Amino acid sequence: MPQINSGRLLADLRRLAQFGAYKSGVHRPTFSPQDIDARRWLAGRFTEAGLEASIDGIGNVFGRSRVTGPKLLIGSHTESQNHAGWLDGALGVMYGLEVARAFSEDPRTSGAAIDVASWADEEGHFGSFLGSRSFTGDVSDEEIDRACDHNDRTPLRKALATAGLAERKRETIVPSDYIGYLEAHIEQGDTLDEGGLRLGVVTGIVGIRQYRIVFVGEANHAGTTRMVKRKDAGVALVNLSATIEDRFPQVSGPRSVWTTGAICLEPGQPSIVPGRAEMLFQVRDLEAARLQRFEETLLALVAEANAMGPCAVTMETLWTVSPVLMSQAFQDALSRAAQTRAPGGFISMPSGAGHDAQILARKLPAGMLFVPSIKGVSHHWTENTSEADIVLGCQALADAAEEIARSHA
Amino acid sequence: MPQINSGRLLADLRRLAQFGAYKSGVHRPTFSPQDIDARRWLAGRFTEAGLEASIDGIGNVFGRSRVTGPKLLIGSHTESQNHAGWLDGALGVMYGLEVARAFSEDPRTSGAAIDVASWADEEGHFGSFLGSRSFTGDVSDEEIDRACDHNDRTPLRKALATAGLAERKRETIVPSDYIGYLEAHIEQGDTLDEGGLRLGVVTGIVGIRQYRIVFVGEANHAGTTRMVKRKDAGVALVNLSATIEDRFPQVSGPRSVWTTGAICLEPGQPSIVPGRAEMLFQVRDLEAARLQRFEETLLALVAEANAMGPCAVTMETLWTVSPVLMSQAFQDALSRAAQTRAPGGFISMPSGAGHDAQILARKLPAGMLFVPSIKGVSHHWTENTSEADIVLGCQALADAAEEIARSHA
Repeated sequence: MPQINSGRLLADLRRLAQFGAYKSGVHRPTFSPQDIDARRWLAGRFTEAGLEASIDGIGNVFGRSRVTGPKLLIGSHTESQNHAGWLDGALGVMYGLEVARAFSEDPRTSGAAIDVASWADEEGHFGSFLGSRSFTGDVSDEEIDRACDHNDRTPLRKALATAGLAERKRETIVPSDYIGYLEAHIEQGDTLDEGGLRLGVVTGIVGIRQYRIVFVGEANHAGTTRMVKRKDAGVALVNLSATIEDRFPQVSGPRSVWTTGAICLEPGQPSIVPGRAEMLFQVRDLEAARLQRFEETLLALVAEANAMGPCAVTMETLWTVSPVLMSQAFQDALSRAAQTRAPGGFISMPSGAGHDAQILARKLPAGMLFVPSIKGVSHHWTENTSEADIVLGCQALADAAEEIARSHA
Repeated sequence: MPQINSGRLLADLRRLAQFGAYKSGVHRPTFSPQDIDARRWLAGRFTEAGLEASIDGIGNVFGRSRVTGPKLLIGSHTESQNHAGWLDGALGVMYGLEVARAFSEDPRTSGAAIDVASWADEEGHFGSFLGSRSFTGDVSDEEIDRACDHNDRTPLRKALATAGLAERKRETIVPSDYIGYLEAHIEQGDTLDEGGLRLGVVTGIVGIRQYRIVFVGEANHAGTTRMVKRKDAGVALVNLSATIEDRFPQVSGPRSVWTTGAICLEPGQPSIVPGRAEMLFQVRDLEAARLQRFEETLLALVAEANAMGPCAVTMETLWTVSPVLMSQAFQDALSRAAQTRAPGGFISMPSGAGHDAQILARKLPAGMLFVPSIKGVSHHWTENTSEADIVLGCQALADAAEEIARSHA
């Protein structure tokens, strides 16, 4: 088995966390100065590890093995959400680098090729999985022309130029070069932490359906408009939301989740009856059939609310992500490694969050490994994982990578 | 009876509507350039009418009668809500000017003193009834120091300086100079319009209690946080709102109204379970006892929601306005005038909206007269009143003013 160097792994993770350090986490939005510095530092670490380092025209950082033959690709992302955790994404990239180093240091595995990648903008500051989708040939130049930073509206083209990447080619995958793709990540939930478990073998990544539901009534004076005459869009929204909370549990599976993440009343003044209201509603599940049942239930509730009046209620789909299953062979290899390193201390589980693995899985067999998030915290600077779990996860990933590489040798 | 000049009245109203004209309404926020221009124009019209015109240090425009003896004060406001109607406020000020002119033109009333006022910022861009409260001695210099434009955060001091009013004294009332205060206004509701009525004699102005209700849960990833583990502040808000809509009708009187005008979920992202939510909730009623019952009901529901968990629910009072009754003698005078000018075509009714009259009523007997708002539209540029109703209302106000002035001669 290739042995990872835990001191080196932790030191690299700590060094990476200095770019955009924020309290005990990081603030490293895609193409912020600190993010660009981190990408350059990463490329330098790849070179020092004997990999062929490059940053492509969308900001993906590659460390390519100089070994010939089928390659195993390992990656994740190095930018962060705003004021978020130090391990989200960073962990998976540094695991890739450490596994590549461990492979090259062990004469039994030094002939196997490990490529490492940090995919740009998994966190979606400018778009949705821009880096991994660019690599799988799924991002057009027009999409890049249109994209801009959701926070400050900086055009992506300008951000790429500032990063010195405007003239660079975007790399695209040659699937036949690869055995498959592995990604490790913090769980971002509390299943492992609460269960006293140390590893999670991901069965698949849930699908997402996201909707905008709009209620149109009539804005009017909150003092002079009698209750019976009102067309209060806010009340219509509250009624539908309450009905959703009442009905959705009847359709729910064990890991189904649904969320109203945003509500807006217009004009949003305390003395004006809201004339328009809007909610963003999202549902996630690993089963496509259940997502479909949720959608049908929602459509029926919207139609019912609209028919009942007095407000017009409409719904549109904003975002659809199909559920993606991980390779069974990769799951098996990860489970065996987990059983060796944490006997009885792991489970198979779906990922409720999206990951670059769901994009790469369109082209390659893919597998994912989770390590615990303390108290399940995610997308917040207090997110953390114990050093013991960080080290264990990397070694288990190295073990699984060896089995997968060997089976394709 | 002093006869109003309907052509002159309508021409002045149309001229005033040119300041900040927006579609068929006006956009004339307090101390915007167009509002300042309108105040200067108004002062000029006062002068032309033989009144002693002035603009004081809070922007109140006065047209003072040169006749000695007890004065009747008539007024309203000339600034508007954003992109709102041409008559809201403006109607009452121009009625005051027209009644003053009609009085001075009629030898039988030319010895009676009519003062006219346009109170600054009734619409609350910077505060709450700033102009009329300043006149009644209820605005401190510290309040002015602190106030700023709710839209663009311009400090009130800066706005006053821009308007050239920084060095001026603020005028304050000498109650013994006045017989009382009259204000006419569009109804801002549809009671008159729907009932085919032409005038409303206001019995009182409803009280208002406004609250902020805050829900604190735990923000977390909308994909990885299982439903049973969530502390979703948005769901807690929706549940309380639905309960309010269910329970409040049991406490309601015939003209009670309650409104959730704004809802905010934080961080407000579709993929994050809301960790904090806030709603602005308001209730209005003419009866103080009923306002108290509403508050007790709300407090009980908030305590119930807080005890049930999983989110902490708290409530604070942001704004309290006590109900104000109009002078019975003034109501009687207005009703007699209404019966003369629109026999059987008027009613007595409370005002669901706030008006400067509720501030002046703290110092003087006060009365209010409503004219119909077509379809009840208010605070929107489509607000309107027929010319016949505009003219009728002004004549009825002049009639009532004559009766009131005569009874105090």
